This record gives sequence, structure tokens and C-alpha cells, in this order.
Amino acid sequence: MVVHHKSTRILKHIACLLTVFSLPFNEGYNMSKILRVNMSNQEVKQLDLPTKYKNRGGRWLTDSFILDEVDPECHPLGPNNKLIFSPGMVTGTLSPNSGRISVGAKSPLTGGIKEANAGTPFAEQLALLGYSAVVVEGRADKGDFWQLFIDKDGAKLTKIKDGLYDKLSICYKKLREEYGENVGIASIGTSGVQKLASAGVCFNDPEGRATRYAGRGGLGAVMGSKGLKYIILDDTDAPGVESKNKELFNEGRKKLAKALMEHDVTKRGGTLNSYGTAALINVLNEAGGLPTNNFRYGRFDGAEKISGETIAKACEERGGVGTMGHHCHNSCIIGCSNVYPKKDGSYYASCMEYESVWSLGADCGIDDLDKVAEMVLLCNEYGLDTIEIGGTIGVAMEGGLAEFGDADKAIELIEEIGKGTPVGKILGSGATVTGKTLGVERVPAVKGQGMPAYEPRAVKGIGYVYATSPMGADHTAGYTIAPEILGVGGSADPLATDKADLARGFQDTTAFIDSSGYCLFIAFAILDIPEGFEGVIDTINGVYGTTSDNDKISKIGTDV
Amino acid sequence: MVVHHKSTRILKHIACLLTVFSLPFNEGYNMSKILRVNMSNQEVKQLDLPTKYKNRGGRWLTDSFILDEVDPECHPLGPNNKLIFSPGMVTGTLSPNSGRISVGAKSPLTGGIKEANAGTPFAEQLALLGYSAVVVEGRADKGDFWQLFIDKDGAKLTKIKDGLYDKLSICYKKLREEYGENVGIASIGTSGVQKLASAGVCFNDPEGRATRYAGRGGLGAVMGSKGLKYIILDDTDAPGVESKNKELFNEGRKKLAKALMEHDVTKRGGTLNSYGTAALINVLNEAGGLPTNNFRYGRFDGAEKISGETIAKACEERGGVGTMGHHCHNSCIIGCSNVYPKKDGSYYASCMEYESVWSLGADCGIDDLDKVAEMVLLCNEYGLDTIEIGGTIGVAMEGGLAEFGDADKAIELIEEIGKGTPVGKILGSGATVTGKTLGVERVPAVKGQGMPAYEPRAVKGIGYVYATSPMGADHTAGYTIAPEILGVGGSADPLATDKADLARGFQDTTAFIDSSGYCLFIAFAILDIPEGFEGVIDTINGVYGTTSDNDKISKIGTDV
Repeated sequence: MVVHHKSTRILKHIACLLTVFSLPFNEGYNMSKILRVNMSNQEVKQLDLPTKYKNRGGRWLTDSFILDEVDPECHPLGPNNKLIFSPGMVTGTLSPNSGRISVGAKSPLTGGIKEANAGTPFAEQLALLGYSAVVVEGRADKGDFWQLFIDKDGAKLTKIKDGLYDKLSICYKKLREEYGENVGIASIGTSGVQKLASAGVCFNDPEGRATRYAGRGGLGAVMGSKGLKYIILDDTDAPGVESKNKELFNEGRKKLAKALMEHDVTKRGGTLNSYGTAALINVLNEAGGLPTNNFRYGRFDGAEKISGETIAKACEERGGVGTMGHHCHNSCIIGCSNVYPKKDGSYYASCMEYESVWSLGADCGIDDLDKVAEMVLLCNEYGLDTIEIGGTIGVAMEGGLAEFGDADKAIELIEEIGKGTPVGKILGSGATVTGKTLGVERVPAVKGQGMPAYEPRAVKGIGYVYATSPMGADHTAGYTIAPEILGVGGSADPLATDKADLARGFQDTTAFIDSSGYCLFIAFAILDIPEGFEGVIDTINGVYGTTSDNDKISKIGTDV
Repeated sequence: MVVHHKSTRILKHIACLLTVFSLPFNEGYNMSKILRVNMSNQEVKQLDLPTKYKNRGGRWLTDSFILDEVDPECHPLGPNNKLIFSPGMVTGTLSPNSGRISVGAKSPLTGGIKEANAGTPFAEQLALLGYSAVVVEGRADKGDFWQLFIDKDGAKLTKIKDGLYDKLSICYKKLREEYGENVGIASIGTSGVQKLASAGVCFNDPEGRATRYAGRGGLGAVMGSKGLKYIILDDTDAPGVESKNKELFNEGRKKLAKALMEHDVTKRGGTLNSYGTAALINVLNEAGGLPTNNFRYGRFDGAEKISGETIAKACEERGGVGTMGHHCHNSCIIGCSNVYPKKDGSYYASCMEYESVWSLGADCGIDDLDKVAEMVLLCNEYGLDTIEIGGTIGVAMEGGLAEFGDADKAIELIEEIGKGTPVGKILGSGATVTGKTLGVERVPAVKGQGMPAYEPRAVKGIGYVYATSPMGADHTAGYTIAPEILGVGGSADPLATDKADLARGFQDTTAFIDSSGYCLFIAFAILDIPEGFEGVIDTINGVYGTTSDNDKISKIGTDV
């Protein structure tokens, strides 16, 4: 299986890189359909995208559906909440790094609209099938779970008979055996089945593994509350995504690809490609901004041992399936992901992301990379958001459930969540509930959502973002780390406190990128290289045959 | 022990009734001191009551201390929260039903200022010792617990060596053995030690039992967070409370006593005295306002079996210690409390209050009064708010931890809270956290606090109070049930929805009564009998030697 995955991966990787110089090969009509999936009566309807949502996608679309259709007073886990999946505006094209899917709902963690997105072939496949959104409504009968299968001929729900508590690697293997190796899969694990608020929505990576997460906000619990376990996509003979103005689109994607391949952070052999996002471990540690032992310190003695550099070294030395520069979706040309191998070269976990390594490592005082990999693996198996879970275990350690640094106990605690024991129910409900339950007052969370990997006292702009984003503590809501720590998109003193404009600007820009379907990491290149940003605008205008200027298109983010 | 209690009780009861016709026997100077108890360094300071707080007490004073001194951003369980104990403005006098104590803090349930009050000799003793308030600040070292002893000579903290997890009946017995049978005791049980948000602050009744609760808002968790397990009062040779205008005071207390003894609800042999507060079970059931099976229904098939009438019958038939018409503090002349006996006449539980019998009975679908008594007993033993716990078990039943009506399982669940197991930690954190943890969306709570025993859809005015009170769902914040159900203080159609003014008026009036130190049940008499209200005003002017008119004094409630 591992060998098969690796060869598939390499082929797809080569295909991705080639796209920079080739034309899109899948062209039909633009995404203009939506699916409404009523879980209460299992009715699935294919409808036209409402005119007012024309030429929009991703976060703009998931947020708009919720804003327009979900009663803000409804319970996040009740039948009146809706869960929306939407590929971005240019997703499904071969513009680089355009394979993001936005998932949105009223969040059981924050009580507000939450969007989380993931890079996954699933995003591309949904777009290629012609769908702007899948809107999951209502709720199945208590205890019932269903799977939604979508292909070029339509969509249908099938009741699931068993395997609700299987690990996701087993689930995905079975689904691929049944529906084919290349299907896209969105899913929840046992945590989502239990409606635990730290459950994310899990997607497949290009090799079909259950590793790519729209993790935050407890959207997996919402999916669980609806009684939907899987969405399975078969894009065989799918209509594809047409660019209305092919010439403009191609110009644009080339500009963007060029910028990405020029920028030190995103180029091949650049920071992200060589060391992954965990390259930030040493950088943030140096800046005193790496939250450690439940945000008690900003520096971690064991930082070097869990750094991107150490991950890269392990991949190289251990060999086997281990690799840096892995791509999470087909059109990605950055390759910031990785596959972390066991000592014998066999598969351990993917991806050893900065956020995951920080939360399950530094924030719990754990500096053993293999133990962290074990925890990442377990989170993937049980459908858990690694950020919320690491933060939660930090709080639990503060509350006396384990000593800081006790990796074996931390692993046991994650197992409890998977098993659904009472301790697991507590931890699976996230950092805020765990703090309440254990009487802990050091709970790093905003609007009920655990803080991610940037110490807001050491990097003030991100603190503004945590505090002001309607989505609660979320670094991807406005990544001010770029100017504050990385010197990208300008430079800002991390300790300066006058950051309201910075935080607002980044939140708007991010909302735009999350709507476009592009990976947030294009921001590094488009902030520093004007032609890159032009490329983004050109591709959007190219796909929709529009002539909107920068300001109008950027306003998409302000609207969100 | 039981016999001893009974004889003490009878003597005190007689003494109380006599007070209607006798002069106060304890006269010294008015309460004008406060104690500041810094738990961080165990420094206890006796200070003058700040001038701006002059002539105020009870809820007005606890709220004012919090408003003025507690950072609203602080964590409820952190060192910057403060826990205030304050007897009412006329507490310690022999005006009837004046023995209430207000406890206030920023609440771990609601996140706002919460006041809960209790009728207890402790209130009277604290006033007689000359204290307007005890302000508990800071926080002891982690894991340390202290007891505060106060007598006429001052106050001191002593570290507690053992018994932190003993049942409160055992704790109180030991304390009385050490400090004397007549000491007043404020305490937390194991739930407060665990800082669980359903922990109340427990006071002694006139017989020294651990049964009188300032239950709501998780104030026991705040006391636990400070590391304070007990406050023990010895009022031997205490200075007492002086009435500055004795004549006016005596006139006033006679007017009030007369009104109380005339009104059908509060007179001797009246509703409250004969059947206790649980007389409401049948009344609310009839009105469709008795929340049943986690607020799924407004009527309970088993209502009659847990009604005040049935409690009274059991007390009569079983005999022994069983009695209705029990008084919770020395100056009480209503006697709405009771002592519920086992079949053999020995002590089972006190008090079988409407709220407790409803929450642990109807709301959990349980109609076995002895099982309900067992649960009331356990709540008292572990220091738990019966309202929050009954509501929480209802939510837990909804979430599948037990079937509705399964009393044995419900008892087991309360035992888990006492033991501090993970399930106990969940339930002990209250209805909202339990709902989150179990993925239940039917969670009857406002601002994080479980709803009390009145179905807001059947009695709209109380729904307004739940929704608008800054203290979350709390019937004692504004008891609109009086006009809506009981025809007291006017009459209002329970289903009419135009209740904003009603809810506001009752909230103001209640805040005034909670500040005065009078039992809320005087409201029945003073709403219907103008001389009763005059009596209240006269006693307050009498104690302080003031000449404030009705409007000025009533404004105390609006100010809160």
C-alpha cells in the first residue's frame, strides 16, 4: 500500500509541476450547480447556484449561505444549522495552488459562523463535477449515519451499516476498495460521530490518505450532528471547469506560478518546500512567540528537536516513505507538506505541520518527534483538529491529568477521545470545556476556540486577529505573522501594539484568498511580487470572463 | 443526634415566634465593619465599611463590591475574582424573616456578577458580630485549603489538614464538636473543592445541619478556587445590631409580622407553612409549567407523587424527625422548610424544596419521593446546587447517560460528582458543559446557567426574567410567578407575551428585598398588604435612623 501510494504521489507531483507550463485539460462549463442534501428525509436536490451567488466560491459562498439561511439563534448541533462545502472560485482549474475547499457552519465552539478550509483533491474534484457548493441541511434520525456519493450522473445517500467507530485509515481504505482508488472523500472520524467540538472534517490527500483537515471550529461535530459520515466523489468524465477567457486565465496562472517559484518562502527548494511549515518552530521560538506548556512560556527548550529542520533530517535519514515537499492537492506547486516515516522507513504520519507539531509538542512540553507523530496519526485516525487537541491536552496538563512533557500519557488521553470514554468526552469537547471541567483558569482560547501556535503577547498583531476575528482564535483568519515575524509583505515590529489596521487588512485579504480557492501560502508571493497578485486577479477574471479590477475583486474579502 | 436537633429546633422555633411580640435582645452597634481576607498571604484585616456603602447590605453590597473591585475581564476562578458574604440591611435584628445572607462573585457559570442568597442563622450571626461584609480576595497556594474563624475578638485563618473530601454532614459535626454546637458555618463540599461550577455555598440551618444553600451561579467553585473551605462564626457576646430608632423599628416589624401572619401564602397554617414550597408542584403542573424530562413537557404524570401535599403526608405518617413548617433561620416566622424522614422516622433530607423536588424529580422523570430525598441529601453532602444538578442530569439523560425516570442511575451519577470521576467532572460542571460534552442541543440554560422550575413557554413573564437578568436563568431574580400563577401582587395571564415591564419591575423589587436581608417570601404579603410594605420601610429606617421614603428605599433595588 505504501509503495502504491508513493508511486501515485510521485506521478501526481510531476503532473502538478507540469501544469505551470501546460493548459488546463479539463474544460466544460463553470461551476454553476449546487446540491442541497436534506438529511431529515434524505432528499438530494441538484439546483442552480442562486444568481446572487454567481461567480463566487469558497469562504465567500459558505459564509453567505450561512448568513442567508441559518438562524443565528439555532443550536450548532441542531437540525437548523447547515454545513456547506464549497470549492474556491478558481478551484478545479490548473492555476497553481488552487485546490482548497471551504467548509462552513455555525460553530459549536464559537457559536458564530466558522469557516475552515483544506487543500485536497476533493476540492478539485467537486469543482470538476460542476458544483459550487454542497449544502447539508436538516438532520438524520438519531443514531443513523449516511454517506453521500456524487458522480457525473448525480448524487445519492446510502445508509451506513457498520464501521462508524473504525479508524479513518481503515475507513478510507474500504471506501477506495469499493469506489475506486481515485475517489475524493470527505469524512468525520469517531470524534465527529460523537459530535465532539474538536472534530474536524477530514479529506483525502492525493494518495488517498485521511490526512487533510478543515480542522477548526468543530465542523466535524456539525457533520456528525447531521448524521453524515462521508461524502464520496467520483469525477470520472466530470464536465470540468471552463475558463471563459482562456488567454487571460493562462497569462494569470503563469504570472502567479512565476511569483511562487521566485519567492524564497514558496519556491522549489525554498523554506516551505524544504522544511515544511514546521520551519516556523525555530523562528517563533527565537522570537519568544512559541507557546509552551499551555502558553506559560514563549520559548521551548526542546524546540530544535521538533523543528522543521529535524523533521526534514528524519525524512532523509530514515528514507522509505519519508519525504518533505509533499503536495496536498494536484495543482499545488509549493509542496509544504510532508510524510513522516518511522525509523524503519514505513509510514508514521502526515502531515507534520507547524501547528500540529507545536500544539502536540511544545504546548504540551513534549520534544519527542516520534511521539508527536503518533499523536498526529491518532488525531487523523479519530478525525480530530490537532490544534484544538494539543491546546486541550495543554489545559488538561495544567489541570493535573498529566505532567507537562509526558508524551505517553498524552497519547493515552487522545486514545480516550477515540474510545469515547468520559475523559475522552471532556477532552474532545476542546480546551474551553476542558478548562471549565477541570477548574483550570489558564485556558488560551477566544470565543471558545483554542489559540493556535503564535503567542499573542509576543506577536501583538496576531493577538488582534485572535481577539477581533468573528471566528475566534484563528491564525488563518489574518496571518499577520508574515510582516511581524517573516518580513513578508512589509515589516512590522511584533511588539508594537498599534496593529488594528494591520489585523483588519490581513483579515480582509485572507477572506479573499479563502474565497478564491487559492492556498493561503500564495500570500507570501503576492504580497511581495505585484505580478503574482495580478496573476490571481487575471485567473479569476479569466475563469469567469469578467473584467473586474483589483479593488473590486479584493472587496470580496471585505464582504465576507 | 437527631433527638438533640429536634429539641434545639423546637426551642428555637418557639423563640422565633415569640419575637413577633418581643423586643430585640441583642443590641450593640450597627454593622459597620468589613473583613478583608486575602487568601494569597492569609492576611485578615478588619476595616470600616467604606462610607459610600453606608447603610447598605446584602445583594446591594455584594454586587457593589464586585462592580467596584473586580476586573470584569478576570477569570472567575482566578485570584482577581472576589467572593463577598454580606448579611442584609436588617439582618441580625428580630424583624421577621430577616436572616438572609447574600453571596456574590463573578460567576463561573454566567461570566457575570452573580448573587445567591440563603436563609441561615449564619447570616444573623455575621450581622450580630458587627460585619457588613466579608470580602475574600486572592488565592491560596494550589491544593491548600483554609478555614476562617470569626468571633467577637477578631478573625483568623487556619490551614486545614484533612477531611477535604468528607461529606458535609461529617464536616459540620466535627466543626460543631470543636467550636461549639451553636457556631455558624459557611462551607463548600467536595464539589467546591474540585471547583465545579455547580457547587454552591452551604450554610447551617438552626439545627446545625449542612442544608441551606446560596446555591446558584457556581459560587462554591469560587470559594474553592480561593482555597477557603469554611467560615466559622461564634457570636458569643457579639455586639449585636442596634436599631437607631427603636420605636420606628418595632412598629415596622410588627406591621410586617402582622401582614405575614395574615396572608394565605405566608401565615401559620398557610400554604408555605403547611406544604412547603413544593406546594407549587401541583400548581405548576396544572398550569402546564412544570418542566418535565429535560423541559420536553410542561406536565408530569408523577407530579402528585412528589408534591408538597405528599411530602407533608409522609412527614405526618412517618413521624420521627419529619416535619413541615421548619424555619431556616431564627427570625423566620413563615416556616416554609421541612425535614423529610425515612420510613422509620429517621432523618432523610432537608429541605425538600420545590426547586429541588422538581429538578431531581420531574425534570428527570423521577416520581419516587424517597429517591428524590436521597438525591437532595447527596447534593447537600457534596455541596451541590440542586437546581443545576437536576437540570444537568436531565441533560445527561437526554444525552443517553441514563433513561428518564431511572432514579438509581441518577443517584449513581450524583455519587460520581462526589467522587470526582471524569463523568462527575462533566456533570459537576453544570448543564451547559454537560450538553456540550455529550453533544446534546436541548440544554435549558441562559448565560450558561441551568433554568429553574418554571417552563418559560407556559409562563412568559419568567421567560423574560430568565432572558434579561444579568444573572442568567434565575427565578429568584424576578419572581413573576406571583402574579402569573399565584394571583399575588395582581394578576397576569401567564401566556400573555407583553411582560417586559412586569419582568423589570419584579427584578427591581427582588433586588431590593435581596439587599434588605428579608426573605423573598415576604413579597407575597407586602405586595398584597400595603402595611406590610410600610413595615419593611419602617424597619430599615428604624435600624439606620433614617427617614427615607418608600421610593428612595425601593430605588436600592433599581440600583443593583
